[in-house]
Amino acid sequence: MGLIVMKFGGTSVANISRIRNVAERVLRSHFAGHQVVVVLSAMAGETDRLLALGREVTAEPVAREMDVLVSTGEQVTIALFSMVVNSMGVSACSLLGHQAKIVTDEVYGRARIVDVETSRIQAELDRGRVVAVAGFQGWDDHGNITTLGRGGSDTTAVALAAALKADVCEIYTDVKGVYTTDPNMVPNARKLEKISYDEMLEMAALGAKVLEIRSVEFASKFKVPIHVRSSFTDEEGTFVIDKDISMERVVVSGVAYNKDQAQVTIKGVPDQPGIAARIFGPISDSGIVVDVIIQNTAEDGLTDVTFTVTRGDLERTLAMAEDSARNVGVHDSEILTNPNVAKVGIIGVGMQNHAGVASKMFRTLAEHGINIILITTSEIKVSVIIDERYTELAVRALHEAFGLDKEPVREG
Amino acid sequence: MGLIVMKFGGTSVANISRIRNVAERVLRSHFAGHQVVVVLSAMAGETDRLLALGREVTAEPVAREMDVLVSTGEQVTIALFSMVVNSMGVSACSLLGHQAKIVTDEVYGRARIVDVETSRIQAELDRGRVVAVAGFQGWDDHGNITTLGRGGSDTTAVALAAALKADVCEIYTDVKGVYTTDPNMVPNARKLEKISYDEMLEMAALGAKVLEIRSVEFASKFKVPIHVRSSFTDEEGTFVIDKDISMERVVVSGVAYNKDQAQVTIKGVPDQPGIAARIFGPISDSGIVVDVIIQNTAEDGLTDVTFTVTRGDLERTLAMAEDSARNVGVHDSEILTNPNVAKVGIIGVGMQNHAGVASKMFRTLAEHGINIILITTSEIKVSVIIDERYTELAVRALHEAFGLDKEPVREG
Repeated sequence: MGLIVMKFGGTSVANISRIRNVAERVLRSHFAGHQVVVVLSAMAGETDRLLALGREVTAEPVAREMDVLVSTGEQVTIALFSMVVNSMGVSACSLLGHQAKIVTDEVYGRARIVDVETSRIQAELDRGRVVAVAGFQGWDDHGNITTLGRGGSDTTAVALAAALKADVCEIYTDVKGVYTTDPNMVPNARKLEKISYDEMLEMAALGAKVLEIRSVEFASKFKVPIHVRSSFTDEEGTFVIDKDISMERVVVSGVAYNKDQAQVTIKGVPDQPGIAARIFGPISDSGIVVDVIIQNTAEDGLTDVTFTVTRGDLERTLAMAEDSARNVGVHDSEILTNPNVAKVGIIGVGMQNHAGVASKMFRTLAEHGINIILITTSEIKVSVIIDERYTELAVRALHEAFGLDKEPVREG
Repeated sequence: MGLIVMKFGGTSVANISRIRNVAERVLRSHFAGHQVVVVLSAMAGETDRLLALGREVTAEPVAREMDVLVSTGEQVTIALFSMVVNSMGVSACSLLGHQAKIVTDEVYGRARIVDVETSRIQAELDRGRVVAVAGFQGWDDHGNITTLGRGGSDTTAVALAAALKADVCEIYTDVKGVYTTDPNMVPNARKLEKISYDEMLEMAALGAKVLEIRSVEFASKFKVPIHVRSSFTDEEGTFVIDKDISMERVVVSGVAYNKDQAQVTIKGVPDQPGIAARIFGPISDSGIVVDVIIQNTAEDGLTDVTFTVTRGDLERTLAMAEDSARNVGVHDSEILTNPNVAKVGIIGVGMQNHAGVASKMFRTLAEHGINIILITTSEIKVSVIIDERYTELAVRALHEAFGLDKEPVREG
């Protein structure tokens, strides 16, 4: 007997027959005596269809209305799911973002959850009902519909699990769990039994798509155990939980990559306090995520600033960078871009206790003739920016070099 | 300068290009200095698509969730419309049933509006915005989504016009106004300049589809002037307003018909107080609209009860009638049905001052060899039930007999 939040993505609810499968799975937990809250995404393809409809109006539709439009996707799914469960003889009820009282800020399209008030959900659970909540959506203080951005349903699920003090948040997906790296790229990638929040965050930040990064931040903050598992089998997947001692014995847990990167270098920036803020302020205000930022040591009072953004944001970023650079006295000609770079990183909580991990990584890449453009590190991660066409070679080489295809040797 | 509610149906918003046309029309009123509230239906075909999706789950999906499902149709339209208007440089904002504070009872699928609280709409108008409200939907006291049933967007528009004390409620449709009869059936049918609420109600009750009957009731109760007009031309349509003296000089204003009727006769019902309630109670409780009810004079303490329902309700009606009849001691064999009847009626507020209208109607039908099965009358209407295959013949004959193709002679 417990309270479980189960989240199913768009592929799992792509049609009525799959929704039935989801309902059967949910009812197994229900009949096992658990209270179950189900968070659902839009049917596969539906969000894209709605986005395309909006863009048929204009290239940049007004954000508030885009949220009104795309949030219908999840609304359709929770209604259908609740109908299915009711038709199976168990009472179920759907709740939209505002009915489930998921309060967000007012940033349409990329809203953040600021509060979840669980009384309505709890009341429905206490009546013995299965509660289906629309993922991806909330409402702001003025009663406007907001959406959380791509992958937002994961965040909805974890936020609900935190607010409801659920025993576990199960994220059902089309893969069997979290792997040492992308199994589509490396056939002998191994499914991890468990991974710490911090490692998962680094993997998500590097581009592992299994969990949306904000959902992991939320889980980490509120210590919500996440169980990432397959919609199609009953076997256990990967638990994303607080780090424990056994995890720290593993030096490297995984290799992640992101091919969707572009690099911008602004040369000859005056090395003065406040310059970085003047360059990056407008860019991040516009919602663009600036990732790796490297500033060289100054020479003659000038420095070079290099950073990466996702490729789709390059054009807008460049326009803003040119504006900002002009304001700090840098000419356009001194802004260089490379639209085809990738980020590859190795992650492991054990890394902080072990020297030589970074140098083993650099040596491995060098042995394969891969040039490193930029490097960033954190306590539990080393990542590099490389030419995009070497991504697969780098990932495979690192996966092998750190022995990730084998059960971990507990070092230490 | 005034406040106008404009309602557009599904055909007018069937695709982005048509939504643009609607937006242009709305902006003409906006730039003329009016405050404009726009009520929109789902894009043509969308409600049917959603209903089909629900029925793919089960033949009778749970009503609450069906409303959650189908209400997405209007949500998509108001979002797209607001995007279009914004892209034209005028601020517009969409409001769903609960945001526009359209409060209904809890009868899912056929809810009635009980209150409209206009503060949010008025605030948006006062900011110079065009406000797009989702037709067809509201919410109940518990925050659940409800829908108003087929044609409910007309009711939304009139209810908003009443609450906002609008100068006029413009209902845009694919016909040019209200005609003396169905122009598809009678080519020389004439568009009416104006018609009284009561006449419009009788025409709608008889099957004229131009306005939803509840919207006319609402308009009549709150004296909201309705202007029924075409989405495709600028010419004036028909005003539906309180009756005036000029209307009373016209004996017959129109001929209406409804082919979708079925007749049920229960023979040998004991002629006792309360019998009718026991027969019709369960039927109307189930939401079936029972129309013409005729009870013969009793013989030997037994009487025959005859009534009509729409054809689609016949099977369910019959099952319930058999149950009820059994309970009052009538055998199944004494229940007769005729699934193929039609209702044809003549309507006119002038009728109450003129004798001989009914007999002229009966004579006309007799001259064309049409047998009358049932007759009902009101102060401003005479209608008959006839064999369905004579509908067109009857409508044409009556239209001609009462000279409806000609501008009315002001009698009296």
